[in-house]
Amino acid sequence: MQKELKGRPITKKIYRQLKSRIELHKLKPKLVVIIIGKDPAAEYYVKMLEKKGKKIGLIVDTLKFEKDISQEKLLLHIKELNNKTDVNGIMIQKPLPNQINESQIISMINYKKDVDAMHPLNIGNMVLDQEGFIPCTPAAVLEMLKFYNIETQGRNIIIIGRSDIVGKPLANLFLRKNETGNATVTICHSRTKNLVSHTKKADILITAIGKPQFVKKEMIKKNSIVIDVGVNQIEDKEKGKIYVGDVDYDDCYHKSLFITPVPGGVGSVTTSLLLKNVVDACEK
Amino acid sequence: MQKELKGRPITKKIYRQLKSRIELHKLKPKLVVIIIGKDPAAEYYVKMLEKKGKKIGLIVDTLKFEKDISQEKLLLHIKELNNKTDVNGIMIQKPLPNQINESQIISMINYKKDVDAMHPLNIGNMVLDQEGFIPCTPAAVLEMLKFYNIETQGRNIIIIGRSDIVGKPLANLFLRKNETGNATVTICHSRTKNLVSHTKKADILITAIGKPQFVKKEMIKKNSIVIDVGVNQIEDKEKGKIYVGDVDYDDCYHKSLFITPVPGGVGSVTTSLLLKNVVDACEK
Repeated sequence: MQKELKGRPITKKIYRQLKSRIELHKLKPKLVVIIIGKDPAAEYYVKMLEKKGKKIGLIVDTLKFEKDISQEKLLLHIKELNNKTDVNGIMIQKPLPNQINESQIISMINYKKDVDAMHPLNIGNMVLDQEGFIPCTPAAVLEMLKFYNIETQGRNIIIIGRSDIVGKPLANLFLRKNETGNATVTICHSRTKNLVSHTKKADILITAIGKPQFVKKEMIKKNSIVIDVGVNQIEDKEKGKIYVGDVDYDDCYHKSLFITPVPGGVGSVTTSLLLKNVVDACEK
Repeated sequence: MQKELKGRPITKKIYRQLKSRIELHKLKPKLVVIIIGKDPAAEYYVKMLEKKGKKIGLIVDTLKFEKDISQEKLLLHIKELNNKTDVNGIMIQKPLPNQINESQIISMINYKKDVDAMHPLNIGNMVLDQEGFIPCTPAAVLEMLKFYNIETQGRNIIIIGRSDIVGKPLANLFLRKNETGNATVTICHSRTKNLVSHTKKADILITAIGKPQFVKKEMIKKNSIVIDVGVNQIEDKEKGKIYVGDVDYDDCYHKSLFITPVPGGVGSVTTSLLLKNVVDACEK
C-alpha cells in the first residue's frame, strides 16, 4: 500500500457504482444549486459538478440570483424546489449575503432534498445514528479510512477545527459504534492551548482549519495517519496560484504512515459523495 | 468558595425564578409524562416531579400504558398530546418495551413540546448553536459551571461516556463559542485505550458511564474539577441501598479542586431544568 492516500481510486469506484445504479433503475437524478451574486469559485465548482454529473447521467441545474435578493423571495424559490418532484437535491452555495438569514433558509429546505446535509434534522439524525444525509466532507473522510482499511477503533483521533460542516460532525461520527467509529476523539481549535501536545498524541490527525501548510512535522507523531481536509489557495513563487492543504505535505510526508494529498485527496471524494446523496434521494 | 459543588443553591434560584415567571405571566404550564409498563423508579421520579411542579405552579400529569401497547396506539396518543394546546411538554420514560420503535416515537413528538430534547431536530439545532431545547443533563452541567464561575475556555475537558443524552451533546456544547464553551474536548468511552492517560490530563473531568465509584484519585489530575453525572444504586454494608456516582467521591475529594456530590449535585439541577423547559415552552 502506498503512503499517499489518493481520492481517485475511491471516486472512480463511486462514480462507476452511481452510473450503473442510474442506468439499472432508469433514474433521472437532478441537483439544483443556488448561487447568489457573482461568485467565480462557486461557478467553477458547479461547472465541475455538471461535468461529473453528465458522465453518470445526473443533471445539475444552477439557479442564479442577484446578490440583493430578499429573504422572502429566496424562501419562495426554496418552496418551489421542495415541491418539484423532478428535483431530488437542493444545495445553496455559501457564503450568503447579509440580508439573508441562513439558518432559516436551510431549515426551509425539505430535509429529504438536503443533499449537502446542512438541515438541523439531518445533523440531529447523524448525531443519533439514525437515517439521513451526512455532511459530504466528513463522509468523505470516513470513506477514505474505510477504503484504505484504516482502523479507527480505540485509536486517538485528533481533529483540528470545530466547524459545523467538518469538525463537529466528524467528531460525532467517530464516536459511533461501527467500523469507522469507536475512536477516542479530541477536538482542538483556535482556543486550544498547547496544540502540539494534542497533535503529537494523534494516531489519526484530521485538519480542517483553512490555514495553508499549518501542520509541520514537529507537530505530528511518527507513523501517524494525516488526513488533510483543508483547501487553501496560495501564491507559489514558481508555479503561481496553487492549492495546498492545512498540512505541509512535503514536510510531514516521511514522518507519517499515511497522508492525503491536496488536491486529489479528501476533496475529490467529497464531490462524489454529494452526487451519491442526490442519487440516493432520487431512488427513495 | 467551597470545594463541593452543590446543586441546591442553583435549583433554589431556578425554582424561585420559575415560580415568579409563572405568577407574573399567569402561565399554566403542563408536562405530560408517559410511563409504559410497571416501572417503580419512573413512578418515583414522576412523583418527585409532581411535587416540585406543585411548588411552583406547574402541572405534571402521568399517562400510564400497559407494557404491550402497540406502536400505532402510542403514536395516536402522542399525536393527541401534540394537538392539545394545554400540554406544553411531553416526556417518555425509558426504556421502552421491545415492540416500540423508540426513534420513530420520539420523532413524532412535536419538537416544540420535546422538553427532554430527544428529538433529532433539537439535537441538530443544539449542534448548530440554534434555538431549541438542550438535553437537561448536559444543560445542568453547564449551569453548574456557570453558577460556580468555572472557566471552560481553552481548558482540557475530558468526558467519559458517549451517550446520546449526556456525552455526545455535552461535547458539542463545550465546543460552542460562548462562555461555557471554547474548550478542548476529548470524549472517552468503553473502547478507549489507556483511559488514565486521558483523565490525568483533564482540567475538567466529566463522568457519565453508570459505573459506581469507578474514578479513583490515581486517575485524576491534582486540582482538577470533577463533575459526576453518574447515579448508581449500590448496596452499602452499613447504610443499605444508597446512591453513588461514577466517581469515588471520598477518594478523589482531597486531590480535586472542586467536585460534585452524588446525590445533590448535577442530578437535582437536571430536574429543575426540565421544568424550566416546560415553562419556556408554555411562554412561547
